[in-house]
Amino acid sequence: MIFKYASRIENVKPSAIRELLTLGSQPDIISFGGGYPAPELFPIDKLNAVFLDVMKENGTKALQYSTSEGLLSLREKLVQRMVNTGISCELDNLFIVQGGQQGLDLVAKLFINKGDIVVTENPTFLGALIAFNPYEPEYKTVPMDEDGMDMDALEEILKANSKVKFIYTVPEFQNPTGVTMSLERRKRLVELANKYNVMILEDSPYREIRFEGEAILPIKSFDTEGRVIHLGSFSKILCPGVRLGWVVAEKEIASKLCLLKLAADTQNSTLNMYLADKFMEKYDIDEHVQSIRVLYKEKKETMIQAIQEYLPSSVSYTNPEGGLFIWMTFPKYMDAAVLMRDRLVPEAKVAYVPGAPFFPVKEEINHCRISYSSMPKEKIVKGIASLGRILKEYC
Amino acid sequence: MIFKYASRIENVKPSAIRELLTLGSQPDIISFGGGYPAPELFPIDKLNAVFLDVMKENGTKALQYSTSEGLLSLREKLVQRMVNTGISCELDNLFIVQGGQQGLDLVAKLFINKGDIVVTENPTFLGALIAFNPYEPEYKTVPMDEDGMDMDALEEILKANSKVKFIYTVPEFQNPTGVTMSLERRKRLVELANKYNVMILEDSPYREIRFEGEAILPIKSFDTEGRVIHLGSFSKILCPGVRLGWVVAEKEIASKLCLLKLAADTQNSTLNMYLADKFMEKYDIDEHVQSIRVLYKEKKETMIQAIQEYLPSSVSYTNPEGGLFIWMTFPKYMDAAVLMRDRLVPEAKVAYVPGAPFFPVKEEINHCRISYSSMPKEKIVKGIASLGRILKEYC
Repeated sequence: MIFKYASRIENVKPSAIRELLTLGSQPDIISFGGGYPAPELFPIDKLNAVFLDVMKENGTKALQYSTSEGLLSLREKLVQRMVNTGISCELDNLFIVQGGQQGLDLVAKLFINKGDIVVTENPTFLGALIAFNPYEPEYKTVPMDEDGMDMDALEEILKANSKVKFIYTVPEFQNPTGVTMSLERRKRLVELANKYNVMILEDSPYREIRFEGEAILPIKSFDTEGRVIHLGSFSKILCPGVRLGWVVAEKEIASKLCLLKLAADTQNSTLNMYLADKFMEKYDIDEHVQSIRVLYKEKKETMIQAIQEYLPSSVSYTNPEGGLFIWMTFPKYMDAAVLMRDRLVPEAKVAYVPGAPFFPVKEEINHCRISYSSMPKEKIVKGIASLGRILKEYC
Repeated sequence: MIFKYASRIENVKPSAIRELLTLGSQPDIISFGGGYPAPELFPIDKLNAVFLDVMKENGTKALQYSTSEGLLSLREKLVQRMVNTGISCELDNLFIVQGGQQGLDLVAKLFINKGDIVVTENPTFLGALIAFNPYEPEYKTVPMDEDGMDMDALEEILKANSKVKFIYTVPEFQNPTGVTMSLERRKRLVELANKYNVMILEDSPYREIRFEGEAILPIKSFDTEGRVIHLGSFSKILCPGVRLGWVVAEKEIASKLCLLKLAADTQNSTLNMYLADKFMEKYDIDEHVQSIRVLYKEKKETMIQAIQEYLPSSVSYTNPEGGLFIWMTFPKYMDAAVLMRDRLVPEAKVAYVPGAPFFPVKEEINHCRISYSSMPKEKIVKGIASLGRILKEYC
């Protein structure tokens, strides 16, 4: 029978790369595909101790309903962390969400009417497009270089389009490119948002995973008019399995987003909020993050060395100062998805994420996103060497 | 500054009873307000054992990303439970959501265009209205008696309105009234949905908490055309703090809802899915549910006896066979919200949920929802006695 769906569903399609990702998940494949944190760093013993403490001290509270805003003591700790990064933040500015992805959904739900424009980096985070699409926006894209968005190109877009609602950016170690927006451009971005009366959505799940270079102040720290919404996440600094993120926004916006959170799923898991809170009380999360940085730096360097050794020189790549991803560009005549399906997976037993779906408007087929975070170093070398053997037939 | 929100936000307002609920949460108040499960039954010791097992056997998997559909072995167990209740269900029909509330949000997102009609019981679950409102539906309401929706009245609505997308019902121990839909009406409901080509959303969080009478087959068990979407929840049979529910739907619908789940928050907490799965593997959840039934039956009977003893006879009330709620009706000239604010909270130190917001179209002010689930028996008696003292001044 034929079901009468809402019209927004025309914008909701299974990802074309889903099948490829399934291919990449076979056990004999070395997969650089998923943006998965390194499992060897998950603090299992500490979480065991934390769980027993929570059950002993607050068992019935941790298993009961809580509030949509989230556990007060966890919010207080996160407010302090935000203040420490240079963001002006009070309790009413911050609430807990089901991972950064829910922050993307709620912001889209709050701002986007059908046909409104969202401006993104080109390429941009696929998960954000998936979150925004059901609200039926149009996209305008801004080219990037090694310092992030081209601000002159952005201004041209803002000048020409009155229906822009917000500019979406992943300013640190962007997913998929690994690129970080410079300090100067962050300031200019806020100036442009003020001048053209639009919002900025700053998605910062990787911010703390900087293993080289100097930290740059968040875009939100330059916000003078309440225009910047900042998203943070525990997925990369603790673990993704607890599904905890947070939103920082101007109070009126935070309170409306929180009503939408109530409507969407009532609240986050009380238990997981207690676990994260107790973890931060009992242990030094910054020390834990430091151990992540050390490992990812080693893995990234291993991968960059392998790329230099095994890949043909016609393949270019980014060299991120943090995060999980390298972006690779093949010669223009090559299709990264076809290559993966026809040669890499069956012959080289290697997978990545083909780059095309990260482009909101005009897909480019000759890129791929490669993650080094979850793979052991010897497999990184082996996988890149196998990739190189196939690539050399084409480049 | 003035922010340019999406037009749907006009439908999203803080609940008028929020302030009253805050009043009811003061520590010296006996609150019959929240629909909270009895905390004394949360299986803390068992969850401690379960957590340690999960960390030992599957620690890194439980803390990592999983899939939008949810943990396979948990889905398999839930499929079997659904089959055991009479629902025809395979793996592709069932996926995990962030509590029943997320099921409501996703179904609304999949089906409702602005101006489409949702038909509800009158009164209906407030949380469902909160979930549906951002998608801008209109509501038509069906009167109820002690057997649930009046099916003739429903047919009149379906006959007169071509824009009905779905009928929303809580068929067992309804929130807020405690009423259960009879077997005959369930069959008629499916016949009407088939005849008028609309969907049914069957919200069943309380189904297993039946402490009197005979279980009635779920509406979904009579579904012949894939029109019924069934929502289940762990909140009342295990605990709300893990935020786990499930959706059963025709495969095409389940797969579209799952894409919307991916867009909304990627997935449920992997950790919590492992915990629920291990709990069901290691312990007998039906035995646990049985202990909940025994306790709630005692609490309900205590409350009904106290009502009979202390309340004026002009106050009527429902006598549920399960679930958490009694619905009380005062004489028509009384406003339950005003009474609570001016007399009950300050003088009698008693709180409930005023009934007006449960009416989607035309609010009735002389009802309240009273929950017996989370309050110790001596406080149930004391609270109802105090309520009676005040009510006798008016009735």
